[in-house]
Amino acid sequence: MPDTTSFERAFSPDAFRAHGHALIDALADYIAAAARGNKMPVLPWVEPEQMLERWPQTFPAAPAQDLDHLLARVLDEANHLHHPNYMGHQVPGPLPMGALCDMVASILNNGMAVYEMGPHGVAMERAIIKWMGGLVGFGSACDGVITSGGSLGNLTALLAMRRVTQDRLDGKSPAVLVSDQAHYSVKRAVKVMGWGEDAAIAVPCDDAFRMRVEALPEAVKQAEARGRRVVCVVGSACTTPTGTYDPLARIADFCGAHELWFHVDAAHGGPAGLSGKYRHLLDGCARADSVVFDAHKMLLMPALVTGVIFRDGANSFCTFDDRASYLIDKSPQEEWYNPGHRTMECTKRMMCLKVYAALMCYGTKFFADYVTRQYDLAKTFARMVRDTSGFELAIEPDANIVCFRYAPAGVIALDDLNAAIRKHIVESGAFYIVQARLPKGHFLRVTLLNPLAGETHLASLLDCVRATGNELLAASRSHT
Amino acid sequence: MPDTTSFERAFSPDAFRAHGHALIDALADYIAAAARGNKMPVLPWVEPEQMLERWPQTFPAAPAQDLDHLLARVLDEANHLHHPNYMGHQVPGPLPMGALCDMVASILNNGMAVYEMGPHGVAMERAIIKWMGGLVGFGSACDGVITSGGSLGNLTALLAMRRVTQDRLDGKSPAVLVSDQAHYSVKRAVKVMGWGEDAAIAVPCDDAFRMRVEALPEAVKQAEARGRRVVCVVGSACTTPTGTYDPLARIADFCGAHELWFHVDAAHGGPAGLSGKYRHLLDGCARADSVVFDAHKMLLMPALVTGVIFRDGANSFCTFDDRASYLIDKSPQEEWYNPGHRTMECTKRMMCLKVYAALMCYGTKFFADYVTRQYDLAKTFARMVRDTSGFELAIEPDANIVCFRYAPAGVIALDDLNAAIRKHIVESGAFYIVQARLPKGHFLRVTLLNPLAGETHLASLLDCVRATGNELLAASRSHT
Repeated sequence: MPDTTSFERAFSPDAFRAHGHALIDALADYIAAAARGNKMPVLPWVEPEQMLERWPQTFPAAPAQDLDHLLARVLDEANHLHHPNYMGHQVPGPLPMGALCDMVASILNNGMAVYEMGPHGVAMERAIIKWMGGLVGFGSACDGVITSGGSLGNLTALLAMRRVTQDRLDGKSPAVLVSDQAHYSVKRAVKVMGWGEDAAIAVPCDDAFRMRVEALPEAVKQAEARGRRVVCVVGSACTTPTGTYDPLARIADFCGAHELWFHVDAAHGGPAGLSGKYRHLLDGCARADSVVFDAHKMLLMPALVTGVIFRDGANSFCTFDDRASYLIDKSPQEEWYNPGHRTMECTKRMMCLKVYAALMCYGTKFFADYVTRQYDLAKTFARMVRDTSGFELAIEPDANIVCFRYAPAGVIALDDLNAAIRKHIVESGAFYIVQARLPKGHFLRVTLLNPLAGETHLASLLDCVRATGNELLAASRSHT
Repeated sequence: MPDTTSFERAFSPDAFRAHGHALIDALADYIAAAARGNKMPVLPWVEPEQMLERWPQTFPAAPAQDLDHLLARVLDEANHLHHPNYMGHQVPGPLPMGALCDMVASILNNGMAVYEMGPHGVAMERAIIKWMGGLVGFGSACDGVITSGGSLGNLTALLAMRRVTQDRLDGKSPAVLVSDQAHYSVKRAVKVMGWGEDAAIAVPCDDAFRMRVEALPEAVKQAEARGRRVVCVVGSACTTPTGTYDPLARIADFCGAHELWFHVDAAHGGPAGLSGKYRHLLDGCARADSVVFDAHKMLLMPALVTGVIFRDGANSFCTFDDRASYLIDKSPQEEWYNPGHRTMECTKRMMCLKVYAALMCYGTKFFADYVTRQYDLAKTFARMVRDTSGFELAIEPDANIVCFRYAPAGVIALDDLNAAIRKHIVESGAFYIVQARLPKGHFLRVTLLNPLAGETHLASLLDCVRATGNELLAASRSHT
């Protein structure tokens, strides 16, 4: 027999109120503790198989746990991204208000693929897309959608590119040029589209990991020799490994001269457009055909919320267009209010709410200051690395990503040493940092996202890396 | 000058606590009001252009709004999915605890593409994937990932299918067979993969909108005649328009006999596996190669959370595999803990938390009872439609989706009448229902998702449809 009272209990406003207030207190305490950070590991490391044992892998017929206790345990055993020693991947400890907005979006559950399912969300999304477009230099004709993440965003943009460029192939197979430092999702998107293994052609970078624009003509020529027609160049603003901005203006010149689609993956670096000091890094982006722009990186939002913006908004309707090109005669404005025409998602979360609320409740200067501070801090850290004996900087950073390594005099196996340092530090819980395999070797990598973390934490990191490195070196010497 | 105190304020645990408690109360009141429903419109209709005027489309440099007030307005002007008269799309008024869990996932922001970014999430996700697989009849070898929605899920599964079947083409172009009632995301996925306009071949349905399995041989033959090799059949469990389950066992027989990949889109209907009474609808699903299973429909979760499950878990690694087929010699078990190998998403939200918590805190019987109740209720409503003069039922429902229409004696233009009835009712805010364009005409369509809504609400709906229809008929007569 169905137990109808259990449904009433599950939807009970009083139960929600009780659990909700308890949870708000637990989360406020959590944020305070994580942001202090000095008494907890950044990442409480557990081997995967052991983790399975900690979390039951089957579910009982009857209730087995209390929600408050379960969530308290989830907080306790999580990675703590608000910890000032979290400096790893490009995922921030988000603004707490973003999580409140996500709760509202989840309660409402207003799908947004069709206007009538999420009317005010559609209005908010439009404001955000136009605002993001403005930041990268687009005019009022720009348009697009918000989608679930940068990888899906790159795919969405490249699908429109495929549609628009399909008449330029002259019977050849299509190809896309992208630097060897671009995010893997670009190559993955090209592969998803069925263009084959070789369709994403790597363009070499210079010593600062910037795409070598002067190598583009040769790349086009080689593609033609293999029966491929280049239809698109993808620039990175910035790249994932080192935070380098490709020379977008020069790529735009090349694309303009050769009738190529220009896509910019600005998932991380688009918000530089907010900063008077760093806006110039996006010079040339205004001439891109499409741009991807994450709010869950440098706008401090919880994942996922990604803008896919087209300079000519009409192109945003090409991604999933079923009609032959000679039939495209309908004004895209007619249905700007039904995002399902332009996005993969049929049930579409109200991802825009948190961004809209953050911009209204904090103002844009807040984010402008934030970008400037974090990019500045990376330059400060780069100087600290250069000025500290035994350390090596990969390149002068453009953005808030810095690659460096411990390179004490006389040690040759620097790649192995730095990989071991990272493993040791992460598993100890002292810092969360990641690594980058660069052509010049294996480097440690930080992304500076927390506006409450500063030089003292970075100085501690260098101390920790040196101490760990020396310990590992001593241990390996004592074993030989 | 960056305003550093503004960062401290934005991350302040005290500010979060104050806004959070205010919001919990507002949401508890909201849930209570929406679930009562009798004093508010289900959907407060506003034309798109007017909506843009209501929500400012530019953002100020300085803070312009208070978060509490902004969110209160968002609640007030939303579509109210907890309202008992919301019976529209397959998106539920979710369990409130799901929204609490989403807030936790958002605060933590533990990405899950690599294990070390979301270790306990990876353990929870694995439990859910195995559980979902068990529900559709898969054994312990099944495996997969959770991804952002059913459309992305279908694409993820079909990408693996493409990889596995690529050696079976004999120089022909590939094709997929799918009923003409399948969800548009299947055709969209085939198109995304670059297989061309004609690669998704529609298989006709019988009068109950079930795929005509006896038409499959002819469809294969016609594909071959056009130079295409059929490599996959997609079954629906259930279809979107009418909630019909395709004859999965017979499709499985056909696929087995012809070495075809069998994919089942069980986004809506997978949870039938929980119900002793309705489990039989999934007979044959156990022989599918891949299944998509949404938790944001019949598991009452907020969007998005979709399982993509492969009977042979090793196939889950084929979706984005870069290696040539003769190089696949590595055990997929080696890296089961890094979901990024198997999903589009690089930043991957901890979508699993709410499902894991719901199953632990409510138990599986809760959801089994829920599915049984809602499927039963649809049969009750179908009887009510049949027994009420002037109404017509499209088909006897399999699931909790019912298509019906007002068809008073003597009226010929039933399609126009029912479209007008729907528009009128939705814009009045009395009920939220949708429509289905079926081969036999234009029908009204309800999805019965709210376990607190029952026969009285359905009786009111019929009254409302009749009264609206009669008004419209009278008005049109008075105009002629």
